[in-house]
Amino acid sequence: MKILVINPNISEDVTRLIEREARRSTRPGTSLTMATAPFGVAYIETRAEAQIGGYATMQVAADLYAGHDAVVVAAFGDPGLTALREILPIPVVGMTEAALHSACQQGGRVSVIAISQRIQAWYRETIHGYGFGSRLASIRALDEPLAHIGRVQEDQGERLVALAERAVAEDGADVLVMAGAPLAGLAREVANRLPVPALDGVTCALHQAQALVDMAARTPSAGSYAAPPVKPCHGLTAALTQLVGSRTQPATLS
Amino acid sequence: MKILVINPNISEDVTRLIEREARRSTRPGTSLTMATAPFGVAYIETRAEAQIGGYATMQVAADLYAGHDAVVVAAFGDPGLTALREILPIPVVGMTEAALHSACQQGGRVSVIAISQRIQAWYRETIHGYGFGSRLASIRALDEPLAHIGRVQEDQGERLVALAERAVAEDGADVLVMAGAPLAGLAREVANRLPVPALDGVTCALHQAQALVDMAARTPSAGSYAAPPVKPCHGLTAALTQLVGSRTQPATLS
Amino acid sequence: MKILVINPNISEDVTRLIEREARRSTRPGTSLTMATAPFGVAYIETRAEAQIGGYATMQVAADLYAGHDAVVVAAFGDPGLTALREILPIPVVGMTEAALHSACQQGGRVSVIAISQRIQAWYRETIHGYGFGSRLASIRALDEPLAHIGRVQEDQGERLVALAERAVAEDGADVLVMAGAPLAGLAREVANRLPVPALDGVTCALHQAQALVDMAARTPSAGSYAAPPVKPCHGLTAALTQLVGSRTQPATLS
Amino acid sequence: MKILVINPNISEDVTRLIEREARRSTRPGTSLTMATAPFGVAYIETRAEAQIGGYATMQVAADLYAGHDAVVVAAFGDPGLTALREILPIPVVGMTEAALHSACQQGGRVSVIAISQRIQAWYRETIHGYGFGSRLASIRALDEPLAHIGRVQEDQGERLVALAERAVAEDGADVLVMAGAPLAGLAREVANRLPVPALDGVTCALHQAQALVDMAARTPSAGSYAAPPVKPCHGLTAALTQLVGSRTQPATLS
Amino acid sequence: MKILVINPNISEDVTRLIEREARRSTRPGTSLTMATAPFGVAYIETRAEAQIGGYATMQVAADLYAGHDAVVVAAFGDPGLTALREILPIPVVGMTEAALHSACQQGGRVSVIAISQRIQAWYRETIHGYGFGSRLASIRALDEPLAHIGRVQEDQGERLVALAERAVAEDGADVLVMAGAPLAGLAREVANRLPVPALDGVTCALHQAQALVDMAARTPSAGSYAAPPVKPCHGLTAALTQLVGSRTQPATLS
Amino acid sequence: MKILVINPNISEDVTRLIEREARRSTRPGTSLTMATAPFGVAYIETRAEAQIGGYATMQVAADLYAGHDAVVVAAFGDPGLTALREILPIPVVGMTEAALHSACQQGGRVSVIAISQRIQAWYRETIHGYGFGSRLASIRALDEPLAHIGRVQEDQGERLVALAERAVAEDGADVLVMAGAPLAGLAREVANRLPVPALDGVTCALHQAQALVDMAARTPSAGSYAAPPVKPCHGLTAALTQLVGSRTQPATLS
Repeated sequence: MKILVINPNISEDVTRLIEREARRSTRPGTSLTMATAPFGVAYIETRAEAQIGGYATMQVAADLYAGHDAVVVAAFGDPGLTALREILPIPVVGMTEAALHSACQQGGRVSVIAISQRIQAWYRETIHGYGFGSRLASIRALDEPLAHIGRVQEDQGERLVALAERAVAEDGADVLVMAGAPLAGLAREVANRLPVPALDGVTCALHQAQALVDMAARTPSAGSYAAPPVKPCHGLTAALTQLVGSRTQPATLS
Repeated sequence: MKILVINPNISEDVTRLIEREARRSTRPGTSLTMATAPFGVAYIETRAEAQIGGYATMQVAADLYAGHDAVVVAAFGDPGLTALREILPIPVVGMTEAALHSACQQGGRVSVIAISQRIQAWYRETIHGYGFGSRLASIRALDEPLAHIGRVQEDQGERLVALAERAVAEDGADVLVMAGAPLAGLAREVANRLPVPALDGVTCALHQAQALVDMAARTPSAGSYAAPPVKPCHGLTAALTQLVGSRTQPATLS
Repeated sequence: MKILVINPNISEDVTRLIEREARRSTRPGTSLTMATAPFGVAYIETRAEAQIGGYATMQVAADLYAGHDAVVVAAFGDPGLTALREILPIPVVGMTEAALHSACQQGGRVSVIAISQRIQAWYRETIHGYGFGSRLASIRALDEPLAHIGRVQEDQGERLVALAERAVAEDGADVLVMAGAPLAGLAREVANRLPVPALDGVTCALHQAQALVDMAARTPSAGSYAAPPVKPCHGLTAALTQLVGSRTQPATLS
Repeated sequence: MKILVINPNISEDVTRLIEREARRSTRPGTSLTMATAPFGVAYIETRAEAQIGGYATMQVAADLYAGHDAVVVAAFGDPGLTALREILPIPVVGMTEAALHSACQQGGRVSVIAISQRIQAWYRETIHGYGFGSRLASIRALDEPLAHIGRVQEDQGERLVALAERAVAEDGADVLVMAGAPLAGLAREVANRLPVPALDGVTCALHQAQALVDMAARTPSAGSYAAPPVKPCHGLTAALTQLVGSRTQPATLS
Repeated sequence: MKILVINPNISEDVTRLIEREARRSTRPGTSLTMATAPFGVAYIETRAEAQIGGYATMQVAADLYAGHDAVVVAAFGDPGLTALREILPIPVVGMTEAALHSACQQGGRVSVIAISQRIQAWYRETIHGYGFGSRLASIRALDEPLAHIGRVQEDQGERLVALAERAVAEDGADVLVMAGAPLAGLAREVANRLPVPALDGVTCALHQAQALVDMAARTPSAGSYAAPPVKPCHGLTAALTQLVGSRTQPATLS
Repeated sequence: MKILVINPNISEDVTRLIEREARRSTRPGTSLTMATAPFGVAYIETRAEAQIGGYATMQVAADLYAGHDAVVVAAFGDPGLTALREILPIPVVGMTEAALHSACQQGGRVSVIAISQRIQAWYRETIHGYGFGSRLASIRALDEPLAHIGRVQEDQGERLVALAERAVAEDGADVLVMAGAPLAGLAREVANRLPVPALDGVTCALHQAQALVDMAARTPSAGSYAAPPVKPCHGLTAALTQLVGSRTQPATLS
């Protein structure tokens, strides 16, 4: 099967981190297409940046999804996830959502370890929006500016492990999620030092994407995830126009 | 004071409906700038369309907000609202949020009357996301395709009133919200026929925007609504780049 | 327009604090009638005191509302608010409710800064009762006895600012509410020292009362905020009897 | 032991209904003092009437509680309950709260059968305020005006049984609560016709009051139910002044 | 009346602790039958141990309930409680549920003091499962291994009191529950040293069991607590087979 | 990899249904061990039956898990799931939990189609216990007695499809779960007739079990899913004793 993995950030080096970890999670016969957002910011921390990254992800997905069996949105907070799920006829998996689902199958309460103080509000809203609020033990985050988003693991690895240990000891976490694409791979490297399972969103997303393809999930023709009704649109890329509407016809608009 | 009112849909005739109602809600000395999304769809009903409309609204707001005292996002579901609130140094008000706040000051439970079945899921998620779930009595919606989005009031007015009456009689609504910019003005016209207050999102948004300006709400320098940290970005309009980041500098990215 | 502002406490000096701040929030053409509870306690901290203050507020409102366009209940915790809203044909606004609505339009999570430890339980129950529980970051309160309720700002101002700063730094507050009529004006005075918006309940209530009058909110004839059904009553003031019932007629009672 | 039972309504005939049922629920050695609100309305249906009835109940309780071991507030919706619990040094039990606690020990979800449409909003808010929202299957209510509040059982008995049956069959109720003092005794009379337990608030309240006295519940000196701090007050009855404050001393007020 | 009290743990000395406290809570004319789980663990701390203890309790109850008026499940966490409530025709009361109901009639928020760190997750899930989550102030627990489960009060009494004091001072508890059958009697002994009511689950359960018998709670014939439908079963004790099914008849199975 | 699939019911024909569907969901290299509860009931519908089935499942799992990579609990309602997850060092997956996780990755709200009215309460409590309450659109169930549990698909297939269609049209379901092991395979057979994805719990559980094995989930040594502390136990099977305790040693007990 073929999976399209989209980094909603513009950071090519983060895309490489994601790819490295994603390849460890593919089964024989699964191939990956990696893509990076053509516009946006270096790493998404806020609602505003997620709004931009979500739209960039829609454009990438519309352009490239053909020929793939599933799409993975590879930024924590899942920018554009539910939008893509409405318009694409194939399964779409987000890193946050996937990590939470895997975590909740391994324990009662989950803590998220994050790379910045600022990022916490957006993560919290995303997690509560999915209905996982009662399963969230805590979010703990680094409190220093990040020098290089592509090297946060090397620079801050020990601090991240310390945050994880406190989440277990003080917040009652049964499972940890090392959050954010820039941390891709960290969970695997530090797993043996932590007393509870530590999950990587990329890993979870890839495994669940493959499972959803295996299950042959059906594209809905009713409900709120059926393809949006065709309607006039304007100024979208050709591929996106195909998915969300017909080109503007002034007559029907007025 | 000057208020920028943005229609996140591309429908100019809906912008005119919004403007007509907005002008009835301005106090002496308040002037309006009307703007219409330069790209997107005719009327937003889905998460996907809201993702697009939210980004279009960010672009418009970034280009035009200078010189204004507040911004109103004039589509129900408030596409881009929290994103704008993070990046702009002036108050930003959304139609849905404003209508819910006004409604909750007039009754216990609120019903929303909407223009299509499909639109309900997105509305429900928006309302729950704000934390108003316990105040929502019901959402009731038309179940026919809309011929002309700019004439839905004329075409479907009686059906909308009937839905509103049922929300009061069967769902226990103390207050009604006539939802969606295409219904701008309907609440005013049918208010006398309904047994509980019927609110118009445009009206609520304009009054609250003026109140927030009067209160001289301060721009935060901390918390999750402070301006996002400056970071590399790429491919954004010049105005948006000003607000969310610095231009891409490959050195810091890698 | 004319607004009746009722202090549910018996403290005339707190009424003067409220009036001073309220006058700063009126627009040209808005006049105020100030009233103080004729019976009750010096400052309401508990459920019991709120029960008393709520009834006193009903009596005052029934006596004085005629000729006014809106009523403001000027004690945090909003004693009697929903009762008044049922029986009066004009908008009724409470300090807590108004502050929360304004706060939620400026940020995600809100902290309340309060004048005593004891007052917190009543505030928490009020806030959760409105359905704002998911938006409450924390309540932080002074922990010393108050010497003079009318001078708490002068005596405890620095301690209150310190609590506010901790609410932002440790509890994740995006917005602060300086709670309680005895703190009227404090938010304005310390706003520049705090990194997020700090709101004053009196200010919010006055602005929202004027906005509701502008919107010409309709008195409901159905739903749970229509005027209560007329029924036998006894021992109420003449004005209150007018609003909640007919005088006792033993025949219908037995 | 001695229990003071207060009817927060002014209806003497409802007090007699309550007394008849209460006497069936006392153990040997338990005696009752019955009291009726000296002011207020014939039967409480609304937030406004509950505010009045709650204050009347406080006055009665302050006057009469001495020499008793517990107090029962005998109106559904429990007007004044938490206020009394703060100021009295003996257990205070409310009909609604008691019925819900007994019901939740007999089943998963509970339906409330009520005497009027209007009364439902106040009941719902009371039940949610206690935190029992997840256990509430439904509230079903009569929809006709009540001719004589003291004869609603005779006049509407069959309709009330029909509502109860529908709550079991359609709403998934495991237990029924026949709500409102005017229905005192009805549950006992129709129990054999209903397929699930039907509870009477008076019965539940009396049994639980006796159990709390047996358990020798301790009066708290800390927490939010300790006696309110002494403070200046004015215009209260002598007995209430004893409980909530000291008489006004202008010096401490200003 | 006769009450069957079942210790779901295998510890006879804990059964004696329970019995000692239970006897203090019986009224004249109430007699007790004490029973200890015939299989299981010394003290239940986990979901796994509760699953075992719940089944052991079902077996004991099925064997012994005949001739009794009520059953008490005497382990915190209430193993098997709802199962017994479905299959027995008499009231069944659990220690946790009873303690929470009594606590919520004496205050707003409740803290639970527990004997081990590990036990907290199971307690939290039990409490949230009953719908009492909004009333839970905190769970505080010992963090040392227990040498002798029958002597934890003597060994750890002071530490438990210290935890209770912190729950009041730091967590806002209005009421305390001293949790776990091994703590039976502790609440009574330390009550005078604590500033808020401290409840004993055994005491609460016995009083409520007697109250439910007094109220003559009816066995339901509908709803989710009616006796389970008769169906093939296999390998159960004779008494349990009587209650949950008919012996396996291969014909109906296939 | 090897997966142990346990039917917590005693029905061998249901085990065969499960096996048939499970084999369709295994990847090359995955082998299954099927097991049927040695004691219990024909099909679990109630809390009581789940308590029995959960204990039977624990015994089976303890006896057979060695040499396997994961365990699947193959009854809706997941009897014993969290208990097994605590005591086994390998992943454990439940049908309900797995189906909900898969469903929530394909839509916003989920309806469950069930085989009997009675089973609904237990399902609802299970789903809410996992924290998925906000994602549940409805549970719809057959309302006729089941003649043969192994033939419910043949006998009631059309009725089940009709319930599913109503859940989409009337309850707003985006995804359907055909619930209960006796329905294993039905979702696959009727998928093309339904307008939204219809999921099979067995299928979901097998795919997720394989994914969890692929992810090499780590056994925790801390948190509430670490192996329970060793303690005296009695009367358990040898295998279960190995997992939950040491054999009873009276000295440590007293």
